[in-house]
Amino acid sequence: LVKQYEALAEASRPVLGIADEAFSAIKKQITREEVRAVTLAKLRLCQDMVLWDIGAGSGSVSIEADRLMPDGRVYAIEQNEQYQRFIRENLRKFHSRHVTVVEGEAPGCLERLPDPDRVFIGGSGGSLWAILSVVDQRLAAGGRIVVNAITLDTLAAASEFLENAGYRVEVTSVNIARTRPATDYKMFEAFNPVFVLVADKE
Amino acid sequence: LVKQYEALAEASRPVLGIADEAFSAIKKQITREEVRAVTLAKLRLCQDMVLWDIGAGSGSVSIEADRLMPDGRVYAIEQNEQYQRFIRENLRKFHSRHVTVVEGEAPGCLERLPDPDRVFIGGSGGSLWAILSVVDQRLAAGGRIVVNAITLDTLAAASEFLENAGYRVEVTSVNIARTRPATDYKMFEAFNPVFVLVADKE
Amino acid sequence: LVKQYEALAEASRPVLGIADEAFSAIKKQITREEVRAVTLAKLRLCQDMVLWDIGAGSGSVSIEADRLMPDGRVYAIEQNEQYQRFIRENLRKFHSRHVTVVEGEAPGCLERLPDPDRVFIGGSGGSLWAILSVVDQRLAAGGRIVVNAITLDTLAAASEFLENAGYRVEVTSVNIARTRPATDYKMFEAFNPVFVLVADKE
Amino acid sequence: LVKQYEALAEASRPVLGIADEAFSAIKKQITREEVRAVTLAKLRLCQDMVLWDIGAGSGSVSIEADRLMPDGRVYAIEQNEQYQRFIRENLRKFHSRHVTVVEGEAPGCLERLPDPDRVFIGGSGGSLWAILSVVDQRLAAGGRIVVNAITLDTLAAASEFLENAGYRVEVTSVNIARTRPATDYKMFEAFNPVFVLVADKE
Repeated sequence: LVKQYEALAEASRPVLGIADEAFSAIKKQITREEVRAVTLAKLRLCQDMVLWDIGAGSGSVSIEADRLMPDGRVYAIEQNEQYQRFIRENLRKFHSRHVTVVEGEAPGCLERLPDPDRVFIGGSGGSLWAILSVVDQRLAAGGRIVVNAITLDTLAAASEFLENAGYRVEVTSVNIARTRPATDYKMFEAFNPVFVLVADKE
Repeated sequence: LVKQYEALAEASRPVLGIADEAFSAIKKQITREEVRAVTLAKLRLCQDMVLWDIGAGSGSVSIEADRLMPDGRVYAIEQNEQYQRFIRENLRKFHSRHVTVVEGEAPGCLERLPDPDRVFIGGSGGSLWAILSVVDQRLAAGGRIVVNAITLDTLAAASEFLENAGYRVEVTSVNIARTRPATDYKMFEAFNPVFVLVADKE
Repeated sequence: LVKQYEALAEASRPVLGIADEAFSAIKKQITREEVRAVTLAKLRLCQDMVLWDIGAGSGSVSIEADRLMPDGRVYAIEQNEQYQRFIRENLRKFHSRHVTVVEGEAPGCLERLPDPDRVFIGGSGGSLWAILSVVDQRLAAGGRIVVNAITLDTLAAASEFLENAGYRVEVTSVNIARTRPATDYKMFEAFNPVFVLVADKE
Repeated sequence: LVKQYEALAEASRPVLGIADEAFSAIKKQITREEVRAVTLAKLRLCQDMVLWDIGAGSGSVSIEADRLMPDGRVYAIEQNEQYQRFIRENLRKFHSRHVTVVEGEAPGCLERLPDPDRVFIGGSGGSLWAILSVVDQRLAAGGRIVVNAITLDTLAAASEFLENAGYRVEVTSVNIARTRPATDYKMFEAFNPVFVLVADKE
């Protein structure tokens, strides 16, 4: 019976697309719904992959990735304690099945995780090159790394590292503006641009 | 054995994220990967919904929606014969399971379809209001309409109609630019902006 | 001697390009430097034109237009008293020569002004059609109207009015993001998009 | 009499804002009207400055800068012969007064020019660092460099060089889309994004 109820509940949850407000988070820091969708599409997730979500923040990418992969394993890596609490809260709220919170600092804490098929880097806490270096060693052939950069510095550094390491690199700039529903006038409010870098390992 | 093979093949296909080049289409007219991802997220598809994809073009939204909904039913409505051929070709190529091609002109051909939970309008062939009028009658309560507008005219008309009909309307402008992989210089190439309008029926 | 000093001072002021922070204004409401530059270019100002700046706000467009037109006459129309004070302060600060502040509500207060060669509408206080109607009667043949819209409503209404009145209408969407100087990381901060509508009277 | 006629003609030319189509150029390569306006505003030109326009292309920035500086001196530096012809043609067409075409390759050909107050780099033919190095030596204190980058590589390299050399660096990303006038539908067409880098010498 419980299982039936669960299945019913599941069926009524969107497979993709959770509103920003639905997550517990520091509002200004959450990856916006539209950027999250682009990020998830760029990750090219298959049903049973291992995803590392480095700098998981509120866990929004992990949670949506989990919904897309019925047999996946998602590792939400986050060193900030406040953010860890947000992630736990959101995992409960969204009934995530296969997300493990990894409390610790990357790249150190990556050692004990299974090798990834996909890696998402949403934040690197100043250790970008060290993280990319470990990720490069562990990532499966045919694997893919996606980095969301909001600074020119991160974008340039990630791009340089990954090209030198022989990856095929593509960058997409995403400029989003949105009107608020239920207002008299439809005024567009801009979100800060995000550069979504995709790197394929041959 | 066939079933096992099928399951295996399935597992190796991304649940979300198909490159633009992978579709048979008139290249300049396809909904770009990034915009498609935003559109799919805005559709808030659940596992077993009925989706009308009006003005299906190459069928790219239908095909990605089908992957997201294991028990869904997708109707790809398209009146242009060349596009219908593209859709059929793409459905085969991507092993789509629950997509029905509806050859004909909306809103006329919508009559024989089951009521939709979600409606996506990517093109309206000049009959936007007539289509919205039928969609409004048929859409379930709690249903959602997403319109991708590339002209100010479509955006303004859809917005006006749906607000007057009591929907809660939100518009997102999506400006995307992308570098090409495997070039010496990372030059950003812009795609035309798309306005993604979302309307919720209370 | 005073004249010489004046000339010297003049020579050391940029003809175009004033930083946002230099203006007294409600910071969030000022037309951003980049959008102002696009607006001024779209106005196609010649040396001795008459410009109406309707909804002048902080007066930033009037002040930059004045610098571009050595023999021009600029009318900064503004009904809000706080904004009028900002304009006066800014006119003094930037040594504007040919800008007249018009305190009052458009379109009523336009009656006593000389016919314009160019009209900029930065705000319309809810009377857009009434204003456009008067502007249309008074604008010289070969004249040009520029409207900066931040809402879909203003954009659609201005576009509809001016097309029906026989103008040649072009719309430019301007999406700007900027890094802050003197920070450790170059993070792009987005400004809300502005739609710059240009209408030519034949 | 000629002088009077000249003055009259002058008065009827816009001080700022020339349409892209008005220039002889390779259409896809011209700096778009809107980006040109932003660039000119960022240059903060005063009445009598010396401007180096490096990689002048069609000469559009030089020509608009000339109009803004009644007593300025503009050097349009260009090594490509086809582009040099475009520049000469455009200088004639737009009656530019104080623009000198410098045929040759930067940084070599910069030696014989007077020290600049402002430098615009629209193209660097692969010698960006060598050019910036010379520009840095020659630029007056209080001077300003503006670089328009369309690749991540140029943006990152210019930013790195100028920050290391002690400049105050700001980057603006400009995303423009425009409708065509006189069409039945207002469809927005995007131009490739440009990163406008501004560097101030203290």
